[in-house]
Amino acid sequence: MRAGIVGGGRGAFIGRVHRMAAELDGQALIVAGSLSSSPQIAAESAREWCLERSYDSYVEMARAEASMSDGIDFVIVATPNNLHYPVAKAFLERGIPVVCDKPLAHTFDDAEALVDLVSRTGLVFALTHTYTGYPMVREARERVVHGQIGEIRKVLVEYHQDWLMHPLEQMGNKQAAWRTDPILAGASGCVGDIGTHAANLLEFITGRRILQLCADLSTHVSGRRLDDDAQMLLRLEGGGKGVLSCSQVACGDENELSIRIYGSSAGLEWHQHEANSLWFKGAGKSWQRLRTAGDEISTDGAAASRLPSGHPEGYLEAFANIYRAAIDDIRRCARDEPLQRQYPTVEDGLRGMRFIARAVESSQQGGQWLTL
Amino acid sequence: MRAGIVGGGRGAFIGRVHRMAAELDGQALIVAGSLSSSPQIAAESAREWCLERSYDSYVEMARAEASMSDGIDFVIVATPNNLHYPVAKAFLERGIPVVCDKPLAHTFDDAEALVDLVSRTGLVFALTHTYTGYPMVREARERVVHGQIGEIRKVLVEYHQDWLMHPLEQMGNKQAAWRTDPILAGASGCVGDIGTHAANLLEFITGRRILQLCADLSTHVSGRRLDDDAQMLLRLEGGGKGVLSCSQVACGDENELSIRIYGSSAGLEWHQHEANSLWFKGAGKSWQRLRTAGDEISTDGAAASRLPSGHPEGYLEAFANIYRAAIDDIRRCARDEPLQRQYPTVEDGLRGMRFIARAVESSQQGGQWLTL
Amino acid sequence: MRAGIVGGGRGAFIGRVHRMAAELDGQALIVAGSLSSSPQIAAESAREWCLERSYDSYVEMARAEASMSDGIDFVIVATPNNLHYPVAKAFLERGIPVVCDKPLAHTFDDAEALVDLVSRTGLVFALTHTYTGYPMVREARERVVHGQIGEIRKVLVEYHQDWLMHPLEQMGNKQAAWRTDPILAGASGCVGDIGTHAANLLEFITGRRILQLCADLSTHVSGRRLDDDAQMLLRLEGGGKGVLSCSQVACGDENELSIRIYGSSAGLEWHQHEANSLWFKGAGKSWQRLRTAGDEISTDGAAASRLPSGHPEGYLEAFANIYRAAIDDIRRCARDEPLQRQYPTVEDGLRGMRFIARAVESSQQGGQWLTL
Amino acid sequence: MRAGIVGGGRGAFIGRVHRMAAELDGQALIVAGSLSSSPQIAAESAREWCLERSYDSYVEMARAEASMSDGIDFVIVATPNNLHYPVAKAFLERGIPVVCDKPLAHTFDDAEALVDLVSRTGLVFALTHTYTGYPMVREARERVVHGQIGEIRKVLVEYHQDWLMHPLEQMGNKQAAWRTDPILAGASGCVGDIGTHAANLLEFITGRRILQLCADLSTHVSGRRLDDDAQMLLRLEGGGKGVLSCSQVACGDENELSIRIYGSSAGLEWHQHEANSLWFKGAGKSWQRLRTAGDEISTDGAAASRLPSGHPEGYLEAFANIYRAAIDDIRRCARDEPLQRQYPTVEDGLRGMRFIARAVESSQQGGQWLTL
Repeated sequence: MRAGIVGGGRGAFIGRVHRMAAELDGQALIVAGSLSSSPQIAAESAREWCLERSYDSYVEMARAEASMSDGIDFVIVATPNNLHYPVAKAFLERGIPVVCDKPLAHTFDDAEALVDLVSRTGLVFALTHTYTGYPMVREARERVVHGQIGEIRKVLVEYHQDWLMHPLEQMGNKQAAWRTDPILAGASGCVGDIGTHAANLLEFITGRRILQLCADLSTHVSGRRLDDDAQMLLRLEGGGKGVLSCSQVACGDENELSIRIYGSSAGLEWHQHEANSLWFKGAGKSWQRLRTAGDEISTDGAAASRLPSGHPEGYLEAFANIYRAAIDDIRRCARDEPLQRQYPTVEDGLRGMRFIARAVESSQQGGQWLTL
Repeated sequence: MRAGIVGGGRGAFIGRVHRMAAELDGQALIVAGSLSSSPQIAAESAREWCLERSYDSYVEMARAEASMSDGIDFVIVATPNNLHYPVAKAFLERGIPVVCDKPLAHTFDDAEALVDLVSRTGLVFALTHTYTGYPMVREARERVVHGQIGEIRKVLVEYHQDWLMHPLEQMGNKQAAWRTDPILAGASGCVGDIGTHAANLLEFITGRRILQLCADLSTHVSGRRLDDDAQMLLRLEGGGKGVLSCSQVACGDENELSIRIYGSSAGLEWHQHEANSLWFKGAGKSWQRLRTAGDEISTDGAAASRLPSGHPEGYLEAFANIYRAAIDDIRRCARDEPLQRQYPTVEDGLRGMRFIARAVESSQQGGQWLTL
Repeated sequence: MRAGIVGGGRGAFIGRVHRMAAELDGQALIVAGSLSSSPQIAAESAREWCLERSYDSYVEMARAEASMSDGIDFVIVATPNNLHYPVAKAFLERGIPVVCDKPLAHTFDDAEALVDLVSRTGLVFALTHTYTGYPMVREARERVVHGQIGEIRKVLVEYHQDWLMHPLEQMGNKQAAWRTDPILAGASGCVGDIGTHAANLLEFITGRRILQLCADLSTHVSGRRLDDDAQMLLRLEGGGKGVLSCSQVACGDENELSIRIYGSSAGLEWHQHEANSLWFKGAGKSWQRLRTAGDEISTDGAAASRLPSGHPEGYLEAFANIYRAAIDDIRRCARDEPLQRQYPTVEDGLRGMRFIARAVESSQQGGQWLTL
Repeated sequence: MRAGIVGGGRGAFIGRVHRMAAELDGQALIVAGSLSSSPQIAAESAREWCLERSYDSYVEMARAEASMSDGIDFVIVATPNNLHYPVAKAFLERGIPVVCDKPLAHTFDDAEALVDLVSRTGLVFALTHTYTGYPMVREARERVVHGQIGEIRKVLVEYHQDWLMHPLEQMGNKQAAWRTDPILAGASGCVGDIGTHAANLLEFITGRRILQLCADLSTHVSGRRLDDDAQMLLRLEGGGKGVLSCSQVACGDENELSIRIYGSSAGLEWHQHEANSLWFKGAGKSWQRLRTAGDEISTDGAAASRLPSGHPEGYLEAFANIYRAAIDDIRRCARDEPLQRQYPTVEDGLRGMRFIARAVESSQQGGQWLTL
């Protein structure tokens, strides 16, 4: 399958990750791209990646690829948040499926428009909430679905980083600059960038939606224009409670994503830094360390592994699992078969946008409870 | 030094712990007790412990011991919460210092009366927030005090157990029965029993008081009369934010007390289940695993260890550190020297009572922010 | 019960540990001692410990205590290795039971004489291989005994410290001085001091004796007169194989004692630094984290805990378990009941001496296999 | 760059890993293969992988590819051990560079012949001792090279698996069958399959060669024809000592590769299951948890990471690092530039063969010390 990419040129982190993940299973090859808004960087980046076709703009790229007989089969959107919607729109309107970075869009209105567009076109649209691709995250969901933990009572989900603990955006760091700029990132910094991953992970594993939240957002670094830390109380569908904490100023925490779920008959615990283990804590029993590809793993959990038990798998492989499912659906779509949507969808993206908006609003009201 | 104890007879957990902790350093010996409200159990328990003197009631004990030339030098209060105040009062009024279990009292009014009484008598009163006795908790406080983590931005403190995940109080478990009975335990179950430890730990290490809280208390086990789980957002003196989670229904968590503190120049992390380690996370540096009695530990942290580095120390030793400091102050008091109060005081107990009351109130109002 | 102690005065580490451990359960009180070979230090140390009776020499102490109506019920030997035998002998010959630090004696001949003497007197003699007192070590033994791991195939046992990585004995450190001096410590440094603990732990848990060994001892610190590191291959009763590694120069390792046992149907793993957990690894199953006092612990394992699950217990409590069993047997002996010997015995001590001798011999022969 | 592969068809584990690793960086694409000795499986496997060209035999493949203008630039050898030599020979003799799985060959003679051939042709030959590709293994080597741990005193290296703890080779498992068959695997099972990885890792990180060994090999599963477990004492260049333990019957251990190195001024510890961390233990200092891509990582260590700190990387990425270095050298070779050999070489492979031979011989002699 031939893929194209918008964004992700030199200096970007996530572009290369998209490439490796998309190509890992030998099912897709990126052949075309509009890798930067700067034509020169775009061209140079394309050369480094050995792309067959490089474009100066995504508009041109969408038009050209759609008209070729061997044009791209799907496009990857890896731009700053403000461009997610226009880029996705340009390709969808020309019949090209989209794999898009999160959050879904820059504003809630854009997000709703995108949901409409995807629905109208019937095309595949996958959102790269990468963390749902980890084998043990899949396993956790399987265990919840099959009633192994009983009724969900309490969930603690956290996503802590520290890379923004200093005002990097005032020191020429491009990644920091757009992520802390309301024009490019949207209404929120930390909640939009990583809190939304945490919320998605919670809903993905538990299958319970967040009904209400009470949020306290902070901007700890002086001069910063968006939040860099947030903590929230959550109330879940079905009566469970939750806590969500996210931070980009949590000194010493590289990229600590974790979730702990307490049910009426068992608990589950997963930490990204030990991604190949899932702790299962049955009532009155010892903790069990479930392992990727181990003998006790469900079909669904095992399918997400590429290696035998004991060979560490990581972030790229999780990312590639999102791609694998999207590519499968793109094939199904081409054969007019029903889609299976084993990846985060445009609707998940819309929920994420609503989550961001409500969190910001709750905090602005001094920490009031709001309904999602 | 001769000590007496009220409560803690057969069937109780905490009584034996008090005995071992009080006597560990060879500075005190429990010689008298009123170990149960049942005279028979009291007498039998006293025999098992080889006490010299056993009493049927604490009133009688206070009177008798106060009048003896070799009467007790201090009393330990290890009863259910509703008796903390009357027992402590009985002894303080006869000039006998008190080491009391937490929470301070059954009601806020009782707690205030106790503060007055302690102040009037000038006697030593120590509250056994055991966790402040751990060497690495002391070390953490030292590091904060000496500015090693900078300004405090965010604190996450948790105390999770699961022993009440089933309705034990309806199955004849005495420990569960009084802890879930508003008459004996007070206004709260989980927050009063362990949430207050978490709040105290946060304030002890950070030296910052909790100014405001927004709490969501839950009763997950049906038929239970008090909360068995709570989660709260906190705002701290000096601008830091916090999250406190406590639970007695967190399936699989034995007794997981932990605290993570994020400052502007370093982070700290401590888990009771790995009590002899403290993680120090300097900005841009590798995590350091500080260890009890290690070369890099402060005088204060090191003084709380009884063994060379690498020999595990635990809960009893932490508990004994509270006793050691209390006994030192009882000696100072007897010599008319100024007290040093290197243990949780009656004022800490009053703050704990206020914390419990506000948490309950906040939750009853649907999760409103309240000032402590 | 009244106890006496020889050695352990000011400057010693292990004396205080013996005291706390012996007294922890409220069943014994140390009342007499000959705490140092220097009369002045002996007297001062005795005052600090509030002992009733202090002696200038152990000979005098043995004679005096044996003749008193309220003389000591047992004696603790906490001297350097070269005195273990003469001190133990002095008390045993006067009918006083002994709890003795390891290794059993200074020479193999002394050790054999001691075995004879204990056998002739019929008195209780316990050796403080502390590590066999840990609850999870007991649990491990129970699991092996009950066939839960099948046939033993491979055992890895390690005891690594680093406190002798510099030539402390040349810098005035008293602990280092006697431990590296052949006159005081015996034929081996590291193997005698800690390797013997590791060998004892292996035999205690597995119930299999070491039949043959091939040892390579090293002296890494220049000028040192005894080994400070050793590694050995072992062949065990029943066909299992083993590796034993011990070191006092393993930079960064405080006091890392661990054992891993691989059987034909399960594995076991225990680390002293996480003493309250035991890993059980059933074939084709997830690892289980068994925990002190947890629901799945055997009667024997649970009896070794003093606290509910989740409250860390440490080295002192393990030590106290050796004392508890010894005291129980001293009581049995006094009542003419059969001894149960739930502690390391004089015969274990003799095996330890043989192990040390053979390890030294094997290494001196360039690493030949020798039979124990 | 165009690559070919011999072996690795359906049912094999390592073939797919080679493909993903070779292609991960977008620098190579596998276009041709002889994937199985069974023509049908070869053809079907090639179709699944979308290869352009499939061959029935490696002989035919070598001839054909060498004569094409767009023939492969290098070949991957992923067959059972007995074919490593003839396959590598076939391609090298036609001027095609080789990336070969380990051990180097089936016999020591073959291995020597291969060293000659590589030397004569001047072609790139890389051996996939994957573990040397981990970022933190590279970092460990850097730290040793730069004197950060001082003189090496002791090394413990282990590689434990349990997948052969039952007689799978008698149950139709193809992977088990060839690995336990002397005809296909060579003189050793466990030592040849994974012990050689451990030995290579030790020499790679420390830069010290193993001079002497004393080995005890076991066959724990009855009916098995080769060793399934081994333990050895090692003496290293420069005076350090070592222990190597490897097992394929270590119940519960998935794939536990670890190394601990103790020097005169610091220690290092790395475990594959926590591959993104390296413990650095400076004398008298707290343990430091160095992390992949962290601020304190050397240029060489950092170059081996593809993701920012905190994003888990695994086995595939380590494998890809071997490929990256090999591909770089293949490019250099084509440009007549000097090779840099930043990957395990044919000489390393020869050392590995000698290690296997000596270990088997030592054990056969009852555990005698032999010189490598």
